[in-house]
Amino acid sequence: MTAAQLDHRTGDVLVTLLDVDGQPLRDRDVLVEQRSHAFSFGNIGFDFVPVANEETASDLAGLWFDVFNTATLPFYWSDFEPQRGRPDTKRLHRAAEWFTRHGCRVKGHPLLWHTLAPDWLREMPTDEVEATVRARIRREVAHFADVMHTWDAINEAVIMPVFANEQHPNAITRLARERGRIAIVRLAFEEARAANPAATLVLNDFDMSTAYECLIEGVLEAGIKIDALGLQSHMHQGYWGEEKTLAILERFSRYGLPIHMTETTLLSGHLMPPEIDDLNDYQIPSWPSTPEGEERQADEIVRHYRTLLSHPSVQAITYWGLTDDGAWLGAPCGLVRADGTPKPGYDALRRLVKEEWWLPPTTLRTDDAGRVAVRGFLGDYQLSCAGRTASLTIGGPGEAVTTLEKGTR
Amino acid sequence: MTAAQLDHRTGDVLVTLLDVDGQPLRDRDVLVEQRSHAFSFGNIGFDFVPVANEETASDLAGLWFDVFNTATLPFYWSDFEPQRGRPDTKRLHRAAEWFTRHGCRVKGHPLLWHTLAPDWLREMPTDEVEATVRARIRREVAHFADVMHTWDAINEAVIMPVFANEQHPNAITRLARERGRIAIVRLAFEEARAANPAATLVLNDFDMSTAYECLIEGVLEAGIKIDALGLQSHMHQGYWGEEKTLAILERFSRYGLPIHMTETTLLSGHLMPPEIDDLNDYQIPSWPSTPEGEERQADEIVRHYRTLLSHPSVQAITYWGLTDDGAWLGAPCGLVRADGTPKPGYDALRRLVKEEWWLPPTTLRTDDAGRVAVRGFLGDYQLSCAGRTASLTIGGPGEAVTTLEKGTR
Repeated sequence: MTAAQLDHRTGDVLVTLLDVDGQPLRDRDVLVEQRSHAFSFGNIGFDFVPVANEETASDLAGLWFDVFNTATLPFYWSDFEPQRGRPDTKRLHRAAEWFTRHGCRVKGHPLLWHTLAPDWLREMPTDEVEATVRARIRREVAHFADVMHTWDAINEAVIMPVFANEQHPNAITRLARERGRIAIVRLAFEEARAANPAATLVLNDFDMSTAYECLIEGVLEAGIKIDALGLQSHMHQGYWGEEKTLAILERFSRYGLPIHMTETTLLSGHLMPPEIDDLNDYQIPSWPSTPEGEERQADEIVRHYRTLLSHPSVQAITYWGLTDDGAWLGAPCGLVRADGTPKPGYDALRRLVKEEWWLPPTTLRTDDAGRVAVRGFLGDYQLSCAGRTASLTIGGPGEAVTTLEKGTR
Repeated sequence: MTAAQLDHRTGDVLVTLLDVDGQPLRDRDVLVEQRSHAFSFGNIGFDFVPVANEETASDLAGLWFDVFNTATLPFYWSDFEPQRGRPDTKRLHRAAEWFTRHGCRVKGHPLLWHTLAPDWLREMPTDEVEATVRARIRREVAHFADVMHTWDAINEAVIMPVFANEQHPNAITRLARERGRIAIVRLAFEEARAANPAATLVLNDFDMSTAYECLIEGVLEAGIKIDALGLQSHMHQGYWGEEKTLAILERFSRYGLPIHMTETTLLSGHLMPPEIDDLNDYQIPSWPSTPEGEERQADEIVRHYRTLLSHPSVQAITYWGLTDDGAWLGAPCGLVRADGTPKPGYDALRRLVKEEWWLPPTTLRTDDAGRVAVRGFLGDYQLSCAGRTASLTIGGPGEAVTTLEKGTR
């Protein structure tokens, strides 16, 4: 990746350092240390819900926090509220607080989805399904407004009204079929927006075809405010490659909306056969991670993350799982083996996030007006000078002048 | 096909026959003869444009008119107006008149399409492309308002903005990409509607995936009035079969709009390999019609037409070509061989349209109030009694009372 390709990920800030009495700190050493990325390097935090609730322990938290800064927490309705009226709010809220205390952003997934809709919804008349869906969305977004600033408002609306891969038809598909896709997208965004106007609400889909473009165009034409487009990218059938990835980004960036790569997986074992249509249909007893697979995965992770960061529309990437232990479909898609040891892919991603795309601790010298020019990746920094510290945010590309007082942090 | 499956295609009319002096014609023989179908059994009429203009002769007109009642005429822009400002209006209008004189309805195809856009459009700024497109649509619809009552207002809008299978990008794709799908659909319908408010305007596509559903939902949500949904069904890669056909009809009938099967082909030779994505990419020197292929085609035509007529939403079927001579892609998709002899598929379709789905000449007897109960396929009929005739339209299922005076025809 050339420097030019990452220009949109970095910023220059000319910082004037003032002493506590307001005088410029002339000709002094300043240590600049990056503290965080503005870019969301996300992963799911599902495994840490019991950890945060002190029900189990885990050795993996260190590995998680060393690379990732955004946690996706599960709000699959049938798991979250298996009995009507008894939602798992407290445990999830504690998990969100736990991630927040560790300096992470937290995202909820998903508010509305046909899969994992609760059984008790199935026999309801459609009007009651709608009312119940609306109430559930309002409830979750309101209860979590203090800790959860991003939501997948609706998941897979393209297939939602025609979803047929199930024995007993679910009520959300029925609702979507009777009301139409745009109406159901509106419903989800309307309720979530009302409950937390400040939240970032994502339209999320796995369908990368023209169908998703058509849905987006209809939704925008209908005046529904979307904050980001979520593109799933489970690559169980093989890495997309740079060309396909850039073509997809090009097509979906046409709408001028931020893009979140919401569900990214790359395998470190054999690939799922291409003829499988619904990934859920591929069920095998054992799906091992292999040495060759792990090398390939590491290489593809680096290529994929580089490609995604090269495109200015991409604001977030959520890798879908840290460990193979309990991974979706039993696939070796984790960055850590089932035994807890990191795969090469973990190390490769950490190198990108914490070394290549990270300003190393750097000592600069203020000029005779007390100024230093800091150039770094968008994110938060700490400046240390003469035993006192200050924080600095590099918020965008271009120049800015920030006057800092020592010891404000 | 059971009688029940065709109930929606037939109607009962209790007709009271009055003499010229207004007296009921009691206890008399009445001959009932079907004259036409309400259902549109269509075909393209491209080959008859030079015939209607007396530039060439053709032996095929008899075969055409014996089965089909709706002609689709070509308005491919680059052929229709190869030099800007010199459209082929007169020849096409004569062709439309010729078909009308033969008792046919006439349809224009298409008003807006990225393929076969004229070369002279290519370098225009997008605003000028839009103005030129709008003017072309207004011009054609207005000039043909007397003879052309149905138009494919826009063709293949799903792929239009992302169409890439060409060396030199066309201007319509650019317009669609910059404006968006819904805007360009609106543009086409808006201009056509303004030029002929009575026309039936069709949204036509080959994309039978959820993408087309999403587009339709967006278009309807945007308040654009669509008169019919056009579903192309070129089956060069094999007959869809009843199950897939009914599933498609089920999905697209959800919008409560009439469905036109706009481009139907079934081959009487080998099939195109399934891996071909854009049918236009399959180019072979010779594609013969074979005896086995002709038997298969005849069987599939019967099954396909039966399936389509069984679904109440379908109002029109356009078969795409009468003869193999000059057929699209050189495929043996005609109902007549290149030498002009009918294939078994022609005879099979004629049997359906003119025998199985046609009331044979039937003599009924009026009762003592001068009434006969006529049950027949929706369409126009002639009643003859005592050397005088009257016309009758069976316009819908259910009962009706129509009083006729002899000799009004």
